[in-house]
Amino acid sequence: MDKLNLSKHISSQFNEEMERVRNHVMAMGGLLEQQLQDALSAISHNDAELAQQVIDTDIKLNNWEIKIDEECNRIIAKRQPAASDLRLIMAVLKTITDLERMGDEVRRIAKVALESFNAHQQDLLVNLENMGRHVGGMLHDVLDAFARMDLESAYTVYREDKKVDREYEAITRQLMTYMMEDPRSIPKIMNVLWSVRSLERIGDRCKNIAEYIAFFVKGKAVTDSSEMEAAGE
Amino acid sequence: MDKLNLSKHISSQFNEEMERVRNHVMAMGGLLEQQLQDALSAISHNDAELAQQVIDTDIKLNNWEIKIDEECNRIIAKRQPAASDLRLIMAVLKTITDLERMGDEVRRIAKVALESFNAHQQDLLVNLENMGRHVGGMLHDVLDAFARMDLESAYTVYREDKKVDREYEAITRQLMTYMMEDPRSIPKIMNVLWSVRSLERIGDRCKNIAEYIAFFVKGKAVTDSSEMEAAGE
Repeated sequence: MDKLNLSKHISSQFNEEMERVRNHVMAMGGLLEQQLQDALSAISHNDAELAQQVIDTDIKLNNWEIKIDEECNRIIAKRQPAASDLRLIMAVLKTITDLERMGDEVRRIAKVALESFNAHQQDLLVNLENMGRHVGGMLHDVLDAFARMDLESAYTVYREDKKVDREYEAITRQLMTYMMEDPRSIPKIMNVLWSVRSLERIGDRCKNIAEYIAFFVKGKAVTDSSEMEAAGE
Repeated sequence: MDKLNLSKHISSQFNEEMERVRNHVMAMGGLLEQQLQDALSAISHNDAELAQQVIDTDIKLNNWEIKIDEECNRIIAKRQPAASDLRLIMAVLKTITDLERMGDEVRRIAKVALESFNAHQQDLLVNLENMGRHVGGMLHDVLDAFARMDLESAYTVYREDKKVDREYEAITRQLMTYMMEDPRSIPKIMNVLWSVRSLERIGDRCKNIAEYIAFFVKGKAVTDSSEMEAAGE
């Protein structure tokens, strides 16, 4: 076997192993999407059992992170990847950290469903659910962009985060107004507020993943919004 | 030069490069500590100029993260480290991400100093400052533990986070009571609440770094509190 074949051979083993890792990232991402949907569904149907299930399932996301982290470390030690191969592993490692932390935010959101709300307060939850669906769409899109390492879709997610931030501000203002009108509701509304904040953080982390995709594709860190916008053009 | 010497030679180059990286992590950590102190000082002296300086300086933490990230990637590609050498680089990469995100939280805290508070509201800020000093101490200790890769100190920080969480809950309850008593103050108090939340997140991220230290020392991911406690014994 000459050197070229050997290097091809190593590269194809690397590719196979990375394919498996990517499948695991997608499985982890799929579980997170399901968790977010279940948390929102638990809130809209006031379903404490489903909320508890979301809280209990979070450990699976932690386990995925540990498993994929170990796989990546093994590949680096065994295959000694460089250039874009190494960048891909780094993008995976950063992505799974964000996915795991998004899981923690979803768990916090699910806790809201463990409380009971009166009819007026229920109205406020509708905004939370709408924002949740918006952020869920972002998560879906960024995982899709990650699967294809597609810079243009990553850029779309990056821009979408600004809309989520505006939605977050509008809902926060509304909830504060409600608290001022009915101060006794403050503790309950605060929990809704934390959930809205958690959704905003999930949006931020989707934006992070969009940056990792740009880092992989462009070969350098892109953390500045003007650079990211230039990357998407 | 025989093989042993060569490997020693490579290993000493690796050590020199990692020493430089560690110094950079400590410089980044030192800057973050200073930022947190300045943000708290800006709040206690109602010093808008200092607060603005904190906000403007945050970009330096982002630049450190990019610089150290690139250094680590270069070392991985060039030195192809394995086992504990690779774990050290991974611990550095994760740590700088947390340090950069803590910088974002500090920037949010500094924004509170841009507002004016009446005498009664000022009293509430005292608790924020106390918690800030507590978290600042944790940050200092975890950076110290990181510099020495000291598992026992890391464990102490890990335990400290529980106290910060309790402090956070106590302050949150106090602020909510204040909001109920004086609903017009809600928007202002909300900003204090977000800052307290930011401090709690900084504490969480100190705990993350303690976990990375355990990961490096023990050779496996430690993300469960009972495991972490066992690691510290």
